[in-house]
Amino acid sequence: MRFPTGKKLDIIPVGRVAIDFNPTDMNRPLNESANFNKYLGGSPANIAVGMARLGSRVGFLGRVSDDQFGTFVTDYFKNEGIDVSHIFRCEHGEKLGLTFTEMLSPTQSSILMYREGVADLQLCPDDVDEEYIASSACLLISGTALCTSPTREASLKALTFALKNKVPVVFDADYRAYSLNEPDAIEIYTSLVAEKADIIMGSREEFDLMERLLSLSGADEASADYWLSRNAKICVIKHGKEGSRAYSREDGCWGVKPFPVSALKGFGGGDGYASAFLHALMNGVPLPDALERGSASAAMLVASHACSRDMPNEEKLLAFIREEKEKYGTVITRL
Amino acid sequence: MRFPTGKKLDIIPVGRVAIDFNPTDMNRPLNESANFNKYLGGSPANIAVGMARLGSRVGFLGRVSDDQFGTFVTDYFKNEGIDVSHIFRCEHGEKLGLTFTEMLSPTQSSILMYREGVADLQLCPDDVDEEYIASSACLLISGTALCTSPTREASLKALTFALKNKVPVVFDADYRAYSLNEPDAIEIYTSLVAEKADIIMGSREEFDLMERLLSLSGADEASADYWLSRNAKICVIKHGKEGSRAYSREDGCWGVKPFPVSALKGFGGGDGYASAFLHALMNGVPLPDALERGSASAAMLVASHACSRDMPNEEKLLAFIREEKEKYGTVITRL
Amino acid sequence: MRFPTGKKLDIIPVGRVAIDFNPTDMNRPLNESANFNKYLGGSPANIAVGMARLGSRVGFLGRVSDDQFGTFVTDYFKNEGIDVSHIFRCEHGEKLGLTFTEMLSPTQSSILMYREGVADLQLCPDDVDEEYIASSACLLISGTALCTSPTREASLKALTFALKNKVPVVFDADYRAYSLNEPDAIEIYTSLVAEKADIIMGSREEFDLMERLLSLSGADEASADYWLSRNAKICVIKHGKEGSRAYSREDGCWGVKPFPVSALKGFGGGDGYASAFLHALMNGVPLPDALERGSASAAMLVASHACSRDMPNEEKLLAFIREEKEKYGTVITRL
Amino acid sequence: MRFPTGKKLDIIPVGRVAIDFNPTDMNRPLNESANFNKYLGGSPANIAVGMARLGSRVGFLGRVSDDQFGTFVTDYFKNEGIDVSHIFRCEHGEKLGLTFTEMLSPTQSSILMYREGVADLQLCPDDVDEEYIASSACLLISGTALCTSPTREASLKALTFALKNKVPVVFDADYRAYSLNEPDAIEIYTSLVAEKADIIMGSREEFDLMERLLSLSGADEASADYWLSRNAKICVIKHGKEGSRAYSREDGCWGVKPFPVSALKGFGGGDGYASAFLHALMNGVPLPDALERGSASAAMLVASHACSRDMPNEEKLLAFIREEKEKYGTVITRL
Repeated sequence: MRFPTGKKLDIIPVGRVAIDFNPTDMNRPLNESANFNKYLGGSPANIAVGMARLGSRVGFLGRVSDDQFGTFVTDYFKNEGIDVSHIFRCEHGEKLGLTFTEMLSPTQSSILMYREGVADLQLCPDDVDEEYIASSACLLISGTALCTSPTREASLKALTFALKNKVPVVFDADYRAYSLNEPDAIEIYTSLVAEKADIIMGSREEFDLMERLLSLSGADEASADYWLSRNAKICVIKHGKEGSRAYSREDGCWGVKPFPVSALKGFGGGDGYASAFLHALMNGVPLPDALERGSASAAMLVASHACSRDMPNEEKLLAFIREEKEKYGTVITRL
Repeated sequence: MRFPTGKKLDIIPVGRVAIDFNPTDMNRPLNESANFNKYLGGSPANIAVGMARLGSRVGFLGRVSDDQFGTFVTDYFKNEGIDVSHIFRCEHGEKLGLTFTEMLSPTQSSILMYREGVADLQLCPDDVDEEYIASSACLLISGTALCTSPTREASLKALTFALKNKVPVVFDADYRAYSLNEPDAIEIYTSLVAEKADIIMGSREEFDLMERLLSLSGADEASADYWLSRNAKICVIKHGKEGSRAYSREDGCWGVKPFPVSALKGFGGGDGYASAFLHALMNGVPLPDALERGSASAAMLVASHACSRDMPNEEKLLAFIREEKEKYGTVITRL
Repeated sequence: MRFPTGKKLDIIPVGRVAIDFNPTDMNRPLNESANFNKYLGGSPANIAVGMARLGSRVGFLGRVSDDQFGTFVTDYFKNEGIDVSHIFRCEHGEKLGLTFTEMLSPTQSSILMYREGVADLQLCPDDVDEEYIASSACLLISGTALCTSPTREASLKALTFALKNKVPVVFDADYRAYSLNEPDAIEIYTSLVAEKADIIMGSREEFDLMERLLSLSGADEASADYWLSRNAKICVIKHGKEGSRAYSREDGCWGVKPFPVSALKGFGGGDGYASAFLHALMNGVPLPDALERGSASAAMLVASHACSRDMPNEEKLLAFIREEKEKYGTVITRL
Repeated sequence: MRFPTGKKLDIIPVGRVAIDFNPTDMNRPLNESANFNKYLGGSPANIAVGMARLGSRVGFLGRVSDDQFGTFVTDYFKNEGIDVSHIFRCEHGEKLGLTFTEMLSPTQSSILMYREGVADLQLCPDDVDEEYIASSACLLISGTALCTSPTREASLKALTFALKNKVPVVFDADYRAYSLNEPDAIEIYTSLVAEKADIIMGSREEFDLMERLLSLSGADEASADYWLSRNAKICVIKHGKEGSRAYSREDGCWGVKPFPVSALKGFGGGDGYASAFLHALMNGVPLPDALERGSASAAMLVASHACSRDMPNEEKLLAFIREEKEKYGTVITRL
């Protein structure tokens, strides 16, 4: 798959910026945790940081709170070299989403979210600037942004401008039950976006959701057949600890297993995966190697306390792959 | 354009059923009108009645109030032979929309609408039954149904099922400023539906709206070029008293003028037009003759006190055309 | 009980103005009624008209829609000589409440209400002018105005200004189940107002509601004892067709039976009662005679098609009493 | 002033429980703070803890979130010996309010609040149990609980039960601009409660608010005159760093100055004041000495990192008073 060249930016993720509060006194119930670190969070924001660390030129389209937390995330982005010219402040007191993490054990974690009247869902169609979208080699739309108005319409408008200006679109399903107050809506909107996207990434459950009205079989091959027959060039379908599969007409089909690291927490891996995979793909790395990098970044993230803060740069990522492969061999297989 | 045969129903309009209160003491401001007639109203409901009068087998997908007014409209439909198996009652006290008409003069009329917490906008995705959609030779989606959730998602779900089951889709833009509490949303959703529709009907202003993000020229030819290059087989663009134009790859392009009747009111014509035009088209009447019938029905409606009640049957419609053509000649020209 | 003299106005009712649509084709279900008369409605509005007809100098504090229906009711008030200087137009498209009446038979009637986003409930504290309240010899607060914010706060503010300026307060419970989306709230607010009111009028059920937290016995005597020990001088407790009772420390306790007229509809009587009773009381008519006038006006109203339109003037009211008493004797008894 | 004896509980505060997140890396803008301690917060909750520490038997009437944070605050209360039998969990996902503190310097601090869809404001009339209210020697109503429905009606219902059962009522104005989405409402409700309260505590600004419709002079004496002529026995009016004044018919009028401690933060003092003052008063400590204890507790709190956690027990409080008075002399003067 080809990305346009000569663009000012490599990628513009659209959607959620939030704050993670991770307890420093771990391995106990959240109610007993008394001290917390504050980190930048939110899936497309984490991907933005991850890709910037790896060397991509990254923008962002989103809304933040008009308070010190809004300042925190914007400053954090600036320090990472991310363009913040299209991050807007909310005007009616909406607040950044908060995620308090309960880390009972590496395999048991849960989250307590503050998402009522949340800033990121206030992104509105008027915030979407055709020139900005056209200035990027790629647009990344996150499923969470489709869960309600007006961020849904803003995302669809960004999609319209991307198609009109031949900017490839990545759709990262990123479905969260918590963000859904309109049952049945999400399957409609995710499938509307997926059928126009160039790259679709999601878990098996997220693909099932997108396909609920379509009477497909639920097998990865059926999903890939359907979406590749629309506009998609690559479908990545994730199966949790079983690993994931990438389907592409041009570059074949590949399976990738997780690197066998010892996890500190059960989340954050997906954003590491997406950032390393997309950065590689946009820089001409062949599909199987891009998948390997995604899997490596995912492994590094679940072993870290934060998500955004601990995104690796290219040197660390490649070193990790080298070391792990020496120990455990390859994680990639041709399907 | 071909419609599937062997279906149980000819058409299923989706969306608004309402009640019109038209003053019997006309030609004065609404505040001075003291007596009113009650009629079934709402654009897709009027079209349903119009087509049933002409002999189509008509269904309907919509929500009505759970009160005597809901009973009134359902009974009215039944009396017209319309299938009401998919008209559902609201569960939280939502009321039918009301339209009080001010008929100051044949050229000056206005409406006072009650649309707060309105029943028709409660149609939800769960109400949409794939089998029912598949049982019809045509689905008609009205733009008003796209203006807000959950009726928007219900309409998009009906559209998805129509496409999946190869049921042709008519999109009647029917844009009303009053139904729009989400600026910028309507242009996104109308264009999403229009690009998948087989027949698109709308005023010049409504086409401008659908095309706002597309940078088209605003000329009818440019609109027709764009939408016929998508999925549309026929585009009908209306210019009020100037008449309307139909564009089709297969059947050429045609202009149609209004019949020069003396109007009693300034509305209702569009629903007469749509019902006669679609009924003719679905029964193999050539495009220019179908347009003539649309124009004739429109003329008959603006000369009547009600909308639904005064929809003509085929005999009256053809008699009207014969008489008017004898007096004034044809209203159709090839473009 | 004494009212202050030398005031510019006799009474200011606060609250609901609405429109009644009564079918001209009666004695059938509402869904079958096809023609309607439009009348001014709403309990305090009807009382305003009733008192103005009898010769009181009447003001009004309320909100109406900014459309032709708002013009209709304001013009109607003006024609009755009611001061409309403190009737304000809504600013966000709120509409006048509508009441469609089903008149199946004189004893069976029901109503279909449009009260969603309704104008009268938009009366807000800023609309309440101390000078205006102080300019009247009496303030009438209607229970419906207490059912939700901001009209609740506006009513409480008017009450505060009335107490501060020694303007007697009439509380007409006028509780409607439909106007209550906050269970348990209405008993709190009605009792807060009742304990400060000089005259309390309500049905037995409405008194039960006001007393729900107070553990009274539910007998009229217990209610009267309680409220007369607060600020009330007169309590009127209604028992539907059984008649009503008035309790007063100064003027004794009285029972009043309905005049035995043949009713056309089952509502409107209460507003006739209140207007004739209060007008009489404010003009020095002794309590039992004031009750007789209330009962007579109630009887005249249930025998009429409209509420507001058919309010009697003093001449007609007294003639009715004379005629009825000749036929049936007195309706008043000392308790 | 006398409190009833033989009750199961000494006091039931009604209203807000929340969580404070105070930065451990202080003296910098909140956006730069990266680590936070979690404390129980909310004015009536802090007072509950403060009084329990001093030995009062404390209950609570309130709503908390149905998540780990709700567990945290309930467990915290239990550990302090507070009765939690009337703390209810929210049923629709409402979350505990959060207060992030910015501690720039001892004199410059600000807060960032999460109060959208907040648990404490969900306390509803059905939660209010007459027997529970009657089982306490005192009810404390906090102004914040009056700012919106349904917590407003719940508070008014608790007030009604307290009056009915002769339970003295403390009204702590605790007005927060942030909790007010209904302009003009708060002055109406605070004055409604204040006129029935036995003890009123508030800042000068809060008294101005309660008196906005009353045309008082704005002087403390005028305020005291007015409210003591209603139901109040004691009015405490606070003037920030100038100290505060207590007015009482029985026990004279007293001024109290702050103890000259070095502050760590600019808030929390009020809750310390209220808890020590009320505990003393309920235990027969004379009014001036009770004020001294209030002032001492306030001083101790502004010098601490937390609010709830750092509430003193009686031994520490009295020791503090002894030491401070030795150094600086008395803070109490007769007015």
